[in-house]
Amino acid sequence: MSPQRVVGQDTVRLDARAKVTGEYVYGMDFSLPGMLHGQILRSPHPHARIVGIETGQAEAVPGVRAIITGRELGEIMMPGMVFDQPPLARARVRYAGEPVALIVALTPDIAAEAARLIQVEYELLPVISEAEAAMQAGAMLIHEDWADYEAAEGLVREGNVCCHSTLTRGDVEQGFAEADLIFEDSFSTESVHQAHVEPRVALGVFDAANKVTVYTNTQLPYWVRTNVALAMGLPESAVRIVTTGIGGGFGSKLYPQLEPLVALLARKTGRPVRIVTPVEEELVAGLPRHPCKLYLKTGVKQDGTLVARQARLILDTGAYAGSGPELASVGVLVLAGPYRTPHLQLDAYAVYTNKTNFGAYRGPGGPQAVFALESHFDIIAENLGLDPLAFRLKNVVEEGDEAGNGQVLRGVGMREALERAAAAIDWDKPAGPNRGKGLACGWWTTTGGASGCLAKLDTDGKFVVTVGTQEIGTGAIMGGIPQVMAELMGVEVEDVRVVVADTETGPYDFGSQGSRTLFNVGRAVQFAAADLAEQIKALAEEMLEVAAADLELRDGAVMVKGTPERRVSLADVAQKSLATTGGLHSRGLSFPEPASHDKSRMISCFYPAFHYPSFFCHAAEVEVDPGTGQVSVLRYVAAHDVGFAINPALAAGQIHGGVVQGIGMGLMEEIVYREGQVLNNNWTDYKLPTIADAPEIEAIIVEHAVEGGPFGAKGVGEAPVVPPPAALANAVYRAAGVRLHALPLTAEKILLAQQQGSGG
Amino acid sequence: MSPQRVVGQDTVRLDARAKVTGEYVYGMDFSLPGMLHGQILRSPHPHARIVGIETGQAEAVPGVRAIITGRELGEIMMPGMVFDQPPLARARVRYAGEPVALIVALTPDIAAEAARLIQVEYELLPVISEAEAAMQAGAMLIHEDWADYEAAEGLVREGNVCCHSTLTRGDVEQGFAEADLIFEDSFSTESVHQAHVEPRVALGVFDAANKVTVYTNTQLPYWVRTNVALAMGLPESAVRIVTTGIGGGFGSKLYPQLEPLVALLARKTGRPVRIVTPVEEELVAGLPRHPCKLYLKTGVKQDGTLVARQARLILDTGAYAGSGPELASVGVLVLAGPYRTPHLQLDAYAVYTNKTNFGAYRGPGGPQAVFALESHFDIIAENLGLDPLAFRLKNVVEEGDEAGNGQVLRGVGMREALERAAAAIDWDKPAGPNRGKGLACGWWTTTGGASGCLAKLDTDGKFVVTVGTQEIGTGAIMGGIPQVMAELMGVEVEDVRVVVADTETGPYDFGSQGSRTLFNVGRAVQFAAADLAEQIKALAEEMLEVAAADLELRDGAVMVKGTPERRVSLADVAQKSLATTGGLHSRGLSFPEPASHDKSRMISCFYPAFHYPSFFCHAAEVEVDPGTGQVSVLRYVAAHDVGFAINPALAAGQIHGGVVQGIGMGLMEEIVYREGQVLNNNWTDYKLPTIADAPEIEAIIVEHAVEGGPFGAKGVGEAPVVPPPAALANAVYRAAGVRLHALPLTAEKILLAQQQGSGG
Repeated sequence: MSPQRVVGQDTVRLDARAKVTGEYVYGMDFSLPGMLHGQILRSPHPHARIVGIETGQAEAVPGVRAIITGRELGEIMMPGMVFDQPPLARARVRYAGEPVALIVALTPDIAAEAARLIQVEYELLPVISEAEAAMQAGAMLIHEDWADYEAAEGLVREGNVCCHSTLTRGDVEQGFAEADLIFEDSFSTESVHQAHVEPRVALGVFDAANKVTVYTNTQLPYWVRTNVALAMGLPESAVRIVTTGIGGGFGSKLYPQLEPLVALLARKTGRPVRIVTPVEEELVAGLPRHPCKLYLKTGVKQDGTLVARQARLILDTGAYAGSGPELASVGVLVLAGPYRTPHLQLDAYAVYTNKTNFGAYRGPGGPQAVFALESHFDIIAENLGLDPLAFRLKNVVEEGDEAGNGQVLRGVGMREALERAAAAIDWDKPAGPNRGKGLACGWWTTTGGASGCLAKLDTDGKFVVTVGTQEIGTGAIMGGIPQVMAELMGVEVEDVRVVVADTETGPYDFGSQGSRTLFNVGRAVQFAAADLAEQIKALAEEMLEVAAADLELRDGAVMVKGTPERRVSLADVAQKSLATTGGLHSRGLSFPEPASHDKSRMISCFYPAFHYPSFFCHAAEVEVDPGTGQVSVLRYVAAHDVGFAINPALAAGQIHGGVVQGIGMGLMEEIVYREGQVLNNNWTDYKLPTIADAPEIEAIIVEHAVEGGPFGAKGVGEAPVVPPPAALANAVYRAAGVRLHALPLTAEKILLAQQQGSGG
Repeated sequence: MSPQRVVGQDTVRLDARAKVTGEYVYGMDFSLPGMLHGQILRSPHPHARIVGIETGQAEAVPGVRAIITGRELGEIMMPGMVFDQPPLARARVRYAGEPVALIVALTPDIAAEAARLIQVEYELLPVISEAEAAMQAGAMLIHEDWADYEAAEGLVREGNVCCHSTLTRGDVEQGFAEADLIFEDSFSTESVHQAHVEPRVALGVFDAANKVTVYTNTQLPYWVRTNVALAMGLPESAVRIVTTGIGGGFGSKLYPQLEPLVALLARKTGRPVRIVTPVEEELVAGLPRHPCKLYLKTGVKQDGTLVARQARLILDTGAYAGSGPELASVGVLVLAGPYRTPHLQLDAYAVYTNKTNFGAYRGPGGPQAVFALESHFDIIAENLGLDPLAFRLKNVVEEGDEAGNGQVLRGVGMREALERAAAAIDWDKPAGPNRGKGLACGWWTTTGGASGCLAKLDTDGKFVVTVGTQEIGTGAIMGGIPQVMAELMGVEVEDVRVVVADTETGPYDFGSQGSRTLFNVGRAVQFAAADLAEQIKALAEEMLEVAAADLELRDGAVMVKGTPERRVSLADVAQKSLATTGGLHSRGLSFPEPASHDKSRMISCFYPAFHYPSFFCHAAEVEVDPGTGQVSVLRYVAAHDVGFAINPALAAGQIHGGVVQGIGMGLMEEIVYREGQVLNNNWTDYKLPTIADAPEIEAIIVEHAVEGGPFGAKGVGEAPVVPPPAALANAVYRAAGVRLHALPLTAEKILLAQQQGSGG
């Protein structure tokens, strides 16, 4: 292969101009003539039986076109690891904010007015606010008929626990017996919201062919399609999902909330119907991060060598399973850590409570588990009299190591990330007064699954790449993908157009999620490019009368190797193809082999291995105001082993954004619940970091390439959000002497802990 | 192959329900938010120099957003066989109705008002109204710089003749010398309009990425793209054409008129811009059928055997070449006829006049040439004392014959069509008083060119077929294509979705024209289906553990041949593919070999052979009112050799529609010109046949299959419009004793001829 011309460069993403000029069409920008407006009537109670719903008064409001209640929809349950959720509540509501009825009207105001006139009679039930309470023997069942639910095979469930996942390696009791010292700690984290700027919005259209189209800012068009088809009782091919632009997703827009509802309303009214979720509803009934409780017990040798670890991760999944079961298995993998540990016993539980269904916020399960593990490690190191860096360097995994689940690790840049992060933060130099530095490491997955690509040589010698998923802002689709194609076809990124997900014409894709997009779609593009290049050379062989093997694609032409003046332009090849083959098209389909692991170690694990894992280390320097406890982040360094940075600027952009979100979770963000009610359902009371809270962030790109990914790349989308709470907690401890075991690390908590002397 | 289940059946077309319910989105139904409205200022003069254009007053009208004149666009000439036409007139107007300026405003009324305020100073030039006058030595040149124009290689041009095509076979003078008798006749035809119900309409959008999208009801999305790109100075890949539904095309919507204009206006204003052509403009400045003059001279033996024929076809192409050069070569082929004739000397001329650019109305060139030739033959037969049927039966081509251009004819159903049409009209039985029967035969092409198809197995086991062109109402795309796919994949038509032309995602296609659509797209679908079936069987092989060769696709499943209970559903194969290959996709690309002909016989012929020709014979019985001369068509029989009728009802539908259009041209339709001005620019003064004018039409499907087409099919779209004027003229002669040499056969002409005794 020639030296890389396009990949590895900071090329401009194809959507840059449209986004900068405001021309880009986000979900909120998309409307249709004759569109009606839907409104969701939500339960005010976290737990209640629905005795009756009276809609007569609401129906009489002029401009109201239809009202749908849960009973009208029959016994449908939405699909997932556990089929436990109806599209609309039927006999029972299980969280405050659960959809109870849908109103569709000529204007949003009319719909809202009608919603107020619907009388729902509720019989209140006791509220379970905490997952540990829900797990107790005799606790009220949030799903009385949980055992009858359809669920993924092999999932271990019991009562309010909708998934119990286990990772077992070696014999943890033997490990503790062999250890010199044993440490036990517990930690807790709160729910934080993805805080995407653009609301969740979907627009449904039903047509005479008994077919529904939904325009939506989803990250997972094909999963949305499955859901809509099920809710409508239609085959999947009768459902078309067209993705609009996405103004921030971060996992919030993985699971369909509005799409089945607008589809049902469109069929009922025969008109296009749109629903938007305003922030007041989003913070109450969105899909924010799972609150967690964590219990850790670690056995070490006196020299710091890890011997054994036992951990329990309790995920509050809210009223429905949703992604809880997946997170339970991701959680045990994160807790296994990028550290050599011969004995592990890790249990994770996804537990029903009377809260919204918590979801898959960027790196789901990661920040919670890493906050606990890396805080715990600093506590251990200090007790052993070891430097936190030295303690980690002694234990980190190396190339070819076996991870806790038995998977063999390849492309392991853990040590390099740790050393470079420490060097960049000047770890060896002492911090000033009230200042401290903290480290946190981790590993994360590059999710696999199918991705497809359809490629064509356009009539003028340019290329079109049609993919099955959407750009969610990372630049994977509109930055990295054109680079991969341009590199392989010997053209520039401007010569490539990328067409995003429309389930009707495009290939299947597992979606823009899980740090997978550029890796998997990029693989598909590689395959499509190779096929297309072969076809192009075959035509050029006839045109140039030179064997295809002696030709190369370069500078928008096919050239004879070593004799670049003997060439034919791609435009001429394209025109030639129209009068011979009928055009040049190729497909690239990717389904990478899942990482192999030791199945006996992983019970009830839906996500039992980290696919092409990446490794990272963050280092923070903070100052804690001795008067107020307020934390200021002075410097922040994030070293990520991304395999190969196809676009270093975009990779750094992912790191910058993830770190700021992680700082938010670490220092200030929290959805505050009291007895199942959200107390801060607005962006004033829910604190988000602003530019004033964002430090200088130094992104360090580490490149331990892996076989299989495009040009050696691994995922980078989620990992940057994972370690900040841990790095900050460790830095705060070293700055202020206060060890907080519960996020966020607010000034109040720090000051109170200092006053109570509860540090360490 | 199993017996055919789906092809050959009258399955329901996929667009039927949407069209019946009114939900189908035609061009006129498509709008965009914020859309501006364009208006074309047209020349009132057929020939003039533009001295100056003053737009100040128009620009001052509130709501006017932009005005464009020809000079602003530079030296651009639109592409074609001859590059002779600017997007907007610059220094000269050459027909009354030629676009001179574009106005775009907030509403159509404002644009129209502003158009009235533009002052154009013209210097009038002499008007050339007739092609034969234009051909005379010393005639004023309509294009003074014709010799400098870019033109297709090999085109013979001279002055006002933009194409002179020649077919020469044998030695016509020797033939005349060998003949017993020689007959000479001349004929003329007028322009008739396609009269599509839906207007020509296009909507352009320009975006920040310097890319333009045009939504248009075009028949040729890729040709439109080439034109828009050229007008905009953009590469083709920066232009996206999305086809809306088409409410009637018939060739009128082949050539881009509005698309470059809306694209230019969208760029100038930064807003979506739509232009609609109202009927008053359409009848003046559309692309209606070429008026023709024809001169024929035929030598025959006493027994009726054809020996030699000389003919001159003079096509009035209007102010620009457009499709004139193509028609000149089609014309000589039609005049060669489906008759054995050893000596031929056929010349066709496309000639500039000061009229609109005549276009490609269904079967372009066909009805004119066949009217002349078949009238001429009836005159000859009568003079020889032969029955018109016997005369034709003696001379028609047979399987394996060589046509006039040297191509060898295959799948020749000419004799069968003639015999069956004659039998169905009871040719042997005398007609009653004032009644007469007429026959007319012909042959026509199935145009070739590239077509592509992208196919996928959807996630639920259904199929999606993406094609590069649009359904124009014939049912080729929404009727026949699903049948071809369903037949080959062992499913029903309801299991196939067809996605139509979007140049961004779809394959290239030569377009919905020239009776080519089902033949060529069907071929592409065959290739795509075969590839996809192979992939499906490969997966099923693993699932069933049976060799792919022993599997067949049937009833939505893959079955073991002979053991249908051993099967796996296509839905299961689809799901399996998502976890192994990443999905199943295929491409089918078709570029059929052009028919080979004797190149030495065809000079300046762009269309030198009829590809997979079809053969046909029509028979009409008419009554002529002796008091008024009014013709009533009592019975009509149309026998067409279509190779194989994939959907007999749709094939018959094409025949019915074509016959009625042919009756219109034969009996009543005519755009009336006086000195370059259209006198009847509305549907009141331009007479169209109504249901009251349409007789019972018996469609007879003759099936002489050809190798190469899908299941043996040939084209059927255009041929039915070709013979009616001739069949009616021959019937009128036998009913009323009046031989008219000029269309249309109006009551006035017949009565006058009867009174003047000019019959025969």
